[in-house]
Amino acid sequence: MPYRELIQSGRKIILAVVDGLGGLPVLGGFTEMELAHLPNLDMLARRYPVGALEPVAAGITPGSGPAHLALFGYDPLKYRIGRGILEALGVDMEVRRGDLAIRGNFATVRDGVVVDRRAGRIPTEENRRLIERLKAIDEVKGVRVIWKSGKEHRFVLLLRGEGLSPEVAETDPGKEGLPPREPEPLSPTPQARFTAEVLREIVERASQLLKDEPQANFFLLRGYAMLPDMPTFEEKWGLKAFGVASYPMYRGLAKLVGMTVPSDTPDFESEIEALRRNWNDYDFFYIHFKDADKAGEDGDWRKKVAALERFDSYVPRLLELGGVLAITGDHDTPCLIRGHSWHYVPLVIASERAGVPTAWHFTERESLTGALGLRPSTDLMGLLLASAGRLKKFGA
Amino acid sequence: MPYRELIQSGRKIILAVVDGLGGLPVLGGFTEMELAHLPNLDMLARRYPVGALEPVAAGITPGSGPAHLALFGYDPLKYRIGRGILEALGVDMEVRRGDLAIRGNFATVRDGVVVDRRAGRIPTEENRRLIERLKAIDEVKGVRVIWKSGKEHRFVLLLRGEGLSPEVAETDPGKEGLPPREPEPLSPTPQARFTAEVLREIVERASQLLKDEPQANFFLLRGYAMLPDMPTFEEKWGLKAFGVASYPMYRGLAKLVGMTVPSDTPDFESEIEALRRNWNDYDFFYIHFKDADKAGEDGDWRKKVAALERFDSYVPRLLELGGVLAITGDHDTPCLIRGHSWHYVPLVIASERAGVPTAWHFTERESLTGALGLRPSTDLMGLLLASAGRLKKFGA
Repeated sequence: MPYRELIQSGRKIILAVVDGLGGLPVLGGFTEMELAHLPNLDMLARRYPVGALEPVAAGITPGSGPAHLALFGYDPLKYRIGRGILEALGVDMEVRRGDLAIRGNFATVRDGVVVDRRAGRIPTEENRRLIERLKAIDEVKGVRVIWKSGKEHRFVLLLRGEGLSPEVAETDPGKEGLPPREPEPLSPTPQARFTAEVLREIVERASQLLKDEPQANFFLLRGYAMLPDMPTFEEKWGLKAFGVASYPMYRGLAKLVGMTVPSDTPDFESEIEALRRNWNDYDFFYIHFKDADKAGEDGDWRKKVAALERFDSYVPRLLELGGVLAITGDHDTPCLIRGHSWHYVPLVIASERAGVPTAWHFTERESLTGALGLRPSTDLMGLLLASAGRLKKFGA
Repeated sequence: MPYRELIQSGRKIILAVVDGLGGLPVLGGFTEMELAHLPNLDMLARRYPVGALEPVAAGITPGSGPAHLALFGYDPLKYRIGRGILEALGVDMEVRRGDLAIRGNFATVRDGVVVDRRAGRIPTEENRRLIERLKAIDEVKGVRVIWKSGKEHRFVLLLRGEGLSPEVAETDPGKEGLPPREPEPLSPTPQARFTAEVLREIVERASQLLKDEPQANFFLLRGYAMLPDMPTFEEKWGLKAFGVASYPMYRGLAKLVGMTVPSDTPDFESEIEALRRNWNDYDFFYIHFKDADKAGEDGDWRKKVAALERFDSYVPRLLELGGVLAITGDHDTPCLIRGHSWHYVPLVIASERAGVPTAWHFTERESLTGALGLRPSTDLMGLLLASAGRLKKFGA
């Protein structure tokens, strides 16, 4: 695609992601967006073009990682973000190119056999105490070793140094009654062998530090992942980007593509405020609204309707900022499915230039026949750049 | 596409293919589907999402082979099913990987020149008598030689053995007044040379057996084809599949991708009955309805409307089976065109999870703006797997 060669300056752009936006009929044939009273969003849908986005491909339900990458214009099938990295982002760790991110579980081992893969789901405070102790292991063979507690038995282990590889066996045997596996290299490369040696030493030293614990006397490692080699958002789209979210994972995804991301945005109110404060210094603003997804996962349509209505009440504040405003979701989370889904996600782009208006309401149904079309989510950035006047003519 | 890595178990799926489903305006601006009274299909279109499928690519009118492959989720541009194979399937021959399938025509040759490429369209019974005689040639150079009569002058010659190749010259000169061509190798490979030798010997021995026939004293060969190397339907989608059709070619297409296909289904009634009997043993069921296509080919819209109404009357029986039911066509056959066409083919997926309903009737027009979108036919399997709960989340 020739976007890079066509970039010019133009208006600012806001991408507001309502996590889990769309749904399916839940009451009397009406969907969540149809049941919600959304005067501001409906006003946008009447004045501006709507459309709908397919996150990854026909029938593919995306996790938040691929769903966000697609909205940011990265092919989610090409750039895979592994489990360890998402876990690291979720506990607010910085992940740099070359780092190896690993999911850890405290576990109970007796007589060389895993008897509890979750160490009885020890309390999070207990986890914190043990991780403090493990921080004594902060360097192995020149590699920096970084530990961070998650909830209950979960933690993240991050290795930072030269020559690491994810091609090493996970030590989690996957079920109880088996011994922990050795971190054997899974490929004959020097990187895999070196990483295996580093992990073996970490496991040995850590098991000494934990050996007298009644429950969490061992840990299991899995989900080894490194960042794919991808261009930054600014390299790709020529936009200085600023991102806000109240959940660490979404902040992490924005950081992955090189956005500037403050960590002091505990709620949507403060997210908007952060955009306002930083308005002059950036071209592109990503803002994340979580509650619709949570309600969808719970299968609670009243709660999802309330979340959508709460988001709607913030729309005037987003419009006040100025710029081209796009509102969509990373994926739908229909209450009927109680989870993410593969369906088209409604989209509206508040710009006179974006296309002809066709809808009366901002809903799952009316978004299917709008001027923005039915498209892969990776198309969104092209539409936004164009609507902001940021793309020159292609050819003469 | 990452489908294979996401497969899990879920509901059963029925794919009902109404051959030649869609049309174009034929009377008062109404299409065949609009003129037909389709209460059951309309009910599905009101309750469930509709959409439309493009068989191969913009403007490409498919034959039944590529059209079905696309519905089964195989890229029809990548997997080409040659003419000889389709002909073999049409006379209910089994085609295995490595077989060479060839179309044969009985012909009349005088003084070394083809004077009638169809041997005066000899009666089918005459054809059968001659093929019985040719069966004396059942093995050449270790290759099994299998003959089967078609209609009038047509037959199929199938070679089964090691080291065969379709890269041999067709012996049919393409018009009268020319001598039959020699089956020369068209590539320097040992396979092409060997196959040419086998065919030369078959032609020589056969011409001795036929030399005293008044009309069919020779035959011409063309459409040499071997199966492409393709994964089975079960390998590709993780589904144990069962297929029924009353016409041999469609049974053959289902067999090509590894479906289990009974041959005792002479009509749609018995096709449904076969599904019912085998319901517990399979995950996926393909069922084929032929009459709409035949009427379209005849350009007879009254007949096509009647065929669609007959199919509609069977819909409750299909629903009774349970599972996720998709109804679509392999391609449209508009009466106006009197043949297959390239247009979008209407689709409905009877599952609450499949998407929001938008239509009042199941028609060519209303299917264009549905929640299933306008998509290549190869997207259908992803939508069906998702609707049946058979795909895990992609990424986290």
